[in-house]
Amino acid sequence: MSAPKKVVLAYSGGLDTSIILKWLQTEYGCEVVTFTADLGQGEELDPARKKAELLGIKPSNIFIEDVREEFVRDFVFPMFRANALYEGQYLLGTSIARPLISKRLVEIAAETGADAVAHGATGKGNDQVRFELSAYALNPDIKVIAPWRLWDLTSRTKLLEFAEANQIPIARDKRGEAPFSVDANLLHTSSEGRVLENPAEEAPDYVLQRITRPEDAPDQPEMVEITFEKGDAVAIDGRAMSPATILTRLNELGGKHGVGILDLVENRFVGMKSRGLYETPGGTILLEAHRGIEQITLDSGSGHLKDSIMPRYAEFIYNGFWFSPERRMLQALIDASQEHVSGTVRVKLYKGSARTVARWSEQSLYSEAHVTFEEDAGAYDQKDAQGFIQLNALRLKLLAARDRRLKR
Amino acid sequence: MSAPKKVVLAYSGGLDTSIILKWLQTEYGCEVVTFTADLGQGEELDPARKKAELLGIKPSNIFIEDVREEFVRDFVFPMFRANALYEGQYLLGTSIARPLISKRLVEIAAETGADAVAHGATGKGNDQVRFELSAYALNPDIKVIAPWRLWDLTSRTKLLEFAEANQIPIARDKRGEAPFSVDANLLHTSSEGRVLENPAEEAPDYVLQRITRPEDAPDQPEMVEITFEKGDAVAIDGRAMSPATILTRLNELGGKHGVGILDLVENRFVGMKSRGLYETPGGTILLEAHRGIEQITLDSGSGHLKDSIMPRYAEFIYNGFWFSPERRMLQALIDASQEHVSGTVRVKLYKGSARTVARWSEQSLYSEAHVTFEEDAGAYDQKDAQGFIQLNALRLKLLAARDRRLKR
Amino acid sequence: MSAPKKVVLAYSGGLDTSIILKWLQTEYGCEVVTFTADLGQGEELDPARKKAELLGIKPSNIFIEDVREEFVRDFVFPMFRANALYEGQYLLGTSIARPLISKRLVEIAAETGADAVAHGATGKGNDQVRFELSAYALNPDIKVIAPWRLWDLTSRTKLLEFAEANQIPIARDKRGEAPFSVDANLLHTSSEGRVLENPAEEAPDYVLQRITRPEDAPDQPEMVEITFEKGDAVAIDGRAMSPATILTRLNELGGKHGVGILDLVENRFVGMKSRGLYETPGGTILLEAHRGIEQITLDSGSGHLKDSIMPRYAEFIYNGFWFSPERRMLQALIDASQEHVSGTVRVKLYKGSARTVARWSEQSLYSEAHVTFEEDAGAYDQKDAQGFIQLNALRLKLLAARDRRLKR
Amino acid sequence: MSAPKKVVLAYSGGLDTSIILKWLQTEYGCEVVTFTADLGQGEELDPARKKAELLGIKPSNIFIEDVREEFVRDFVFPMFRANALYEGQYLLGTSIARPLISKRLVEIAAETGADAVAHGATGKGNDQVRFELSAYALNPDIKVIAPWRLWDLTSRTKLLEFAEANQIPIARDKRGEAPFSVDANLLHTSSEGRVLENPAEEAPDYVLQRITRPEDAPDQPEMVEITFEKGDAVAIDGRAMSPATILTRLNELGGKHGVGILDLVENRFVGMKSRGLYETPGGTILLEAHRGIEQITLDSGSGHLKDSIMPRYAEFIYNGFWFSPERRMLQALIDASQEHVSGTVRVKLYKGSARTVARWSEQSLYSEAHVTFEEDAGAYDQKDAQGFIQLNALRLKLLAARDRRLKR
Repeated sequence: MSAPKKVVLAYSGGLDTSIILKWLQTEYGCEVVTFTADLGQGEELDPARKKAELLGIKPSNIFIEDVREEFVRDFVFPMFRANALYEGQYLLGTSIARPLISKRLVEIAAETGADAVAHGATGKGNDQVRFELSAYALNPDIKVIAPWRLWDLTSRTKLLEFAEANQIPIARDKRGEAPFSVDANLLHTSSEGRVLENPAEEAPDYVLQRITRPEDAPDQPEMVEITFEKGDAVAIDGRAMSPATILTRLNELGGKHGVGILDLVENRFVGMKSRGLYETPGGTILLEAHRGIEQITLDSGSGHLKDSIMPRYAEFIYNGFWFSPERRMLQALIDASQEHVSGTVRVKLYKGSARTVARWSEQSLYSEAHVTFEEDAGAYDQKDAQGFIQLNALRLKLLAARDRRLKR
Repeated sequence: MSAPKKVVLAYSGGLDTSIILKWLQTEYGCEVVTFTADLGQGEELDPARKKAELLGIKPSNIFIEDVREEFVRDFVFPMFRANALYEGQYLLGTSIARPLISKRLVEIAAETGADAVAHGATGKGNDQVRFELSAYALNPDIKVIAPWRLWDLTSRTKLLEFAEANQIPIARDKRGEAPFSVDANLLHTSSEGRVLENPAEEAPDYVLQRITRPEDAPDQPEMVEITFEKGDAVAIDGRAMSPATILTRLNELGGKHGVGILDLVENRFVGMKSRGLYETPGGTILLEAHRGIEQITLDSGSGHLKDSIMPRYAEFIYNGFWFSPERRMLQALIDASQEHVSGTVRVKLYKGSARTVARWSEQSLYSEAHVTFEEDAGAYDQKDAQGFIQLNALRLKLLAARDRRLKR
Repeated sequence: MSAPKKVVLAYSGGLDTSIILKWLQTEYGCEVVTFTADLGQGEELDPARKKAELLGIKPSNIFIEDVREEFVRDFVFPMFRANALYEGQYLLGTSIARPLISKRLVEIAAETGADAVAHGATGKGNDQVRFELSAYALNPDIKVIAPWRLWDLTSRTKLLEFAEANQIPIARDKRGEAPFSVDANLLHTSSEGRVLENPAEEAPDYVLQRITRPEDAPDQPEMVEITFEKGDAVAIDGRAMSPATILTRLNELGGKHGVGILDLVENRFVGMKSRGLYETPGGTILLEAHRGIEQITLDSGSGHLKDSIMPRYAEFIYNGFWFSPERRMLQALIDASQEHVSGTVRVKLYKGSARTVARWSEQSLYSEAHVTFEEDAGAYDQKDAQGFIQLNALRLKLLAARDRRLKR
Repeated sequence: MSAPKKVVLAYSGGLDTSIILKWLQTEYGCEVVTFTADLGQGEELDPARKKAELLGIKPSNIFIEDVREEFVRDFVFPMFRANALYEGQYLLGTSIARPLISKRLVEIAAETGADAVAHGATGKGNDQVRFELSAYALNPDIKVIAPWRLWDLTSRTKLLEFAEANQIPIARDKRGEAPFSVDANLLHTSSEGRVLENPAEEAPDYVLQRITRPEDAPDQPEMVEITFEKGDAVAIDGRAMSPATILTRLNELGGKHGVGILDLVENRFVGMKSRGLYETPGGTILLEAHRGIEQITLDSGSGHLKDSIMPRYAEFIYNGFWFSPERRMLQALIDASQEHVSGTVRVKLYKGSARTVARWSEQSLYSEAHVTFEEDAGAYDQKDAQGFIQLNALRLKLLAARDRRLKR
């Protein structure tokens, strides 16, 4: 790869990406464009602008954007239509944010005439893969620079020395090593590393960033009613809201009631296992509610097909293949199932759990007339079950008859 | 089907199966053998014996058996190796008990020279299918009699009249209609019908049979440590126990802490939707713990393959195909994955939730050396990620290059 | 089911459906509407009109339609986008025609105010299921009458007696029993029954209806070039043609060269095995060519996903679930993959085989620059393979290290 | 990676691996052990021994082995139990040989105290991946040396210069570039590269290595009867034979009759497409026959499950994951299906095609009693179909009723 001339950097304003910014300037002598996104991580963006300016980035090269609505509408919600869980448990909070960042990096590169993008993910994790596969899928000629795989700043000490040598301000609390590493966006907060590295040891309570400990949550349960249209949440307790507003509100509720904590050892795409503590308050409620509304609006054919492809869909997203044709194909299948997934679900929140307790819909396929224990006025003829069972049994009988015949 | 000469009846001792017993005698003039199993449903079996005698069954035709260990060892545990969930949520507590009952019915028929078996499941539900597919798969020539699909006792009034006319004792509380219908075994209790028939209305608290309301559960969390060997639980808090003892103990713990309540609308195999309130206290903990131990002992290849076939496995069991070759084939696949699934998981129980907080194993594949944020002494070469990403990206780049070429 | 008042009958004009026509009139005293479709079965339709009139159907109740273009465009081609094969070998020629017939039956019922439809499929086969599931999926209140399951005309003799008693003309060659039963449409001809019933005996040559025996086919191979656009064939040897014309032309070519004979024992949905001799001349060429064009225009992610869901898609069609949501969901997935499946394939036809020998496309993803054995000018860096392999190997190494550790 | 001390080289005796042998000696100054396997590639092995000696390998370091029986018994046959086809068409002839070679390399390394293995696969292909994943899965600490990814002998000229400078004999016909590259073993011969690189151009006839052009094959068809036991071929035309003998005999028959030619553009695991001309004469017959015997001995549940996982199984093998737990898990599933796959199939060979025409077995599930068009003596009650269809239709009716309700 030839040296880049102009690089768009995914810039948080923090120490690490500030070091990367400087390193790009000194290593390649290239112009740097910064992109800082508000994905709902809960940090002010203004300091990022100031810091970029301080590090010599010209204002027209500083891009700061609130992408929360796009994030929820075009990434989180499509994914939740699938009830996606990686390895049965993980709601993919980090995975789903990366493609959006890459998309904007590549778009800004096109706008600013940059030939490269750069990110601050390490060489051990999944995020490098997600950033880079997304970037290449959108622009096959883009250069991607991953300083953590390239430079020799391989220890905390060296990083701090480089920062000091380059007049990069170091917040007092960044001098020491953080006890764990955090990533956050509107969907979730993940914590990993250091104090969490031994999966046999419980995560300390102070790791929790946004969810109240269940023990400290209110003693009274709280009900929330979520209304869906075509698979997406559109209202809470009867009030219509935008996608990001809905997720924000569910985060408040989940966070308050201790809902959405997951302590997980997962398999990274790069081949190793890692342990994370995930907090997904709103997402956990949303998954429960989406399942609740699908219970009455999806027939078994649709539901079982969705269920059976879900693990693969989740794996594609986890591995960074959001912009792949196979993810799009599965999305087409999933979206085709959601046309009638409309209605309202009541979820009960209480000290760490979110549980569907009621659901109703004009689109409901539930037929009390058929299922009732009472007289059903001919809706269902119980004698039909006889033939249904006989024909389902036929091959089993033929198998059993063979076994019997051969044993003789 | 010609008339049966001798019938083995799945007999609970309750009013409904007593009516069936009598109806079989009068309808076919045939000899009846009763089979009453202790599956952990929590009822005394002695009254069943007395009632059978009262109804004229001779002692050698009364079979009463404690099958709890067989149930957990040969049915529940193999199923839990798969982390089986029907429609993403249901732990299959009723489904998994039916094949065992059918197996014993068919075996007792062979022992007693009976040519038919009979069950008390209605023509609307899944249980008739499960009973009958299992029976036919084990004996292709057996006759199966399902009185609910045959007789004209189609209302409560007619049933009671038949009972009275035939001197079948009617417990006082059976005169009126029960507000809902209950099925129970060591794995779960399910309630459905009547007060539960409207899925838009919350289930009343009095429906709960064995789980404390989370609001009434202890204010202090409790930890439980479950040890697995080759995928099956073998000890609790360090004490080795038999399969049924383990599940019994987990039921106590889960029931005490409000764990394992599920309010579900599901799709029956016979084509309609039904709403149930399921209580699976021990099973819910067991699933969580099994996932916890798999997190560190299964590699991603095994785990993802298991996840991807699980929905089908669960569907086979739900639909009654336990004794089918396809269920056995999937079981072979699943069992082949469990050889190293050994170790211990600590689960935290608190007011309705069960959450893995720590896990350890001699079989662990988790490598702190590889994943650490610290220096890894060469365990992992971050530069390898470059090639890994490039080759994973190659086809995405070729796709993007095509799109670009064609747009020009 | 209450008696029907007006019935739309799928009417071929042959003896069996004429008997059904009469039976409907006499059994229910109802008005009968006939629907006769030209699906490319190669029979004149005029006689069907005359015979219907003879049997007392008034002209406004006789529907005769050429549906060949609709059949190929809306049923055959969408299915071929999936490379659908049931049980690895069967091109679903009968299965795919049934939904179209049912659709027209239901539509004609709506137009004519009929409350029922009727078909001539027996109670042992798949076609009854396909007809009826399609009809119910399009009109939940329609009555479906399947005389073969209802009447007592259970032998050839009784049928002929009924025909004679009702003045139904009997062609001389229908007096005796045909040596096998045939179904045909533009996609295929199937033969089954009687002389074919023993799968250990070879099918006699005279069973072949439309394909030349390979031994009798021309001694010279013939090339055919098929052009695709978005997954569908649109031209042969450079000449644009309509869907039905394309299939007709491929049938001529395949039939001439002995291509498309399949002798199969398959599993029917109703639980038994049956043996059929299928002739699918054009379809066999089309499948080969479609695979050929996908080879260069689909990436592996799309192709492997399609391959993995194909068996289920084929099963849905075979079992009669064309108008189900799950078939539509899979179709959405498949169609999403076909946007770039355009280009031309050359297939060599010779004495029973059809083999792709060349393919080209503006949409090709094949990159000679990457794959060449010659210098590739940096298109591909062989060193990337090192990292790719190392990270793919990582979990295998961790597994092997565990095995080694535990064995010590 | 530190320098290897002793390397086991997969050595063919040809020019390329002789150059590698020398290069290993000069580059690392290490001891080289050669392993030459007779996999049925049709070459004498003695010259390899002489050439190794000539290049200074001491006799105790020269391993020459006939592994044909092991190859067919432990690799080819297990794979054929699955009816494995990569991308719908490729019989995996190269893929399945690599794990065996790696296994022996690793075993010989253990026997001889070598710390590394080496292979002659390039950095562009799949074989490097297959060799190395297999090696690492069997010995996590083994070093793998892939000279083609390491050295600077990047052109034919440089290779020949190196050979000459090191006194490696160069066969006259190796001076020029071969027009294509060939790999062969008992299962298949693959040809690729150079004259085959343009997929729009037909492969010249001279590329064929072992199959007669169909046009030149005998004018008379030939029948062959293959007998299976538990899924594996055990006899031809009634004569029991060893696995390798069976495949050898089928190769002769297929080769003579022009059976088994495949011209394919496939997706390599490393991300690019390549075009190959594959000849798999015996394997093509074997697949057809195995399907033939499964038609009558497997029930639909087993068969459909096998079909649905087959693409993944094939992909695992193609990608080099033979020794992975996921391949073993799928193998357990497949093997569990083959217990009754015993019987005989007659296949007709004629000018390029192999077609099952008859099959019989004591294990047959085909029931003429059930399927017959004649009176079936009560084996099957056609009225059962009514209930079967009604319950399968129920959810479709409920869906249609919803659509109708909502449209009003």
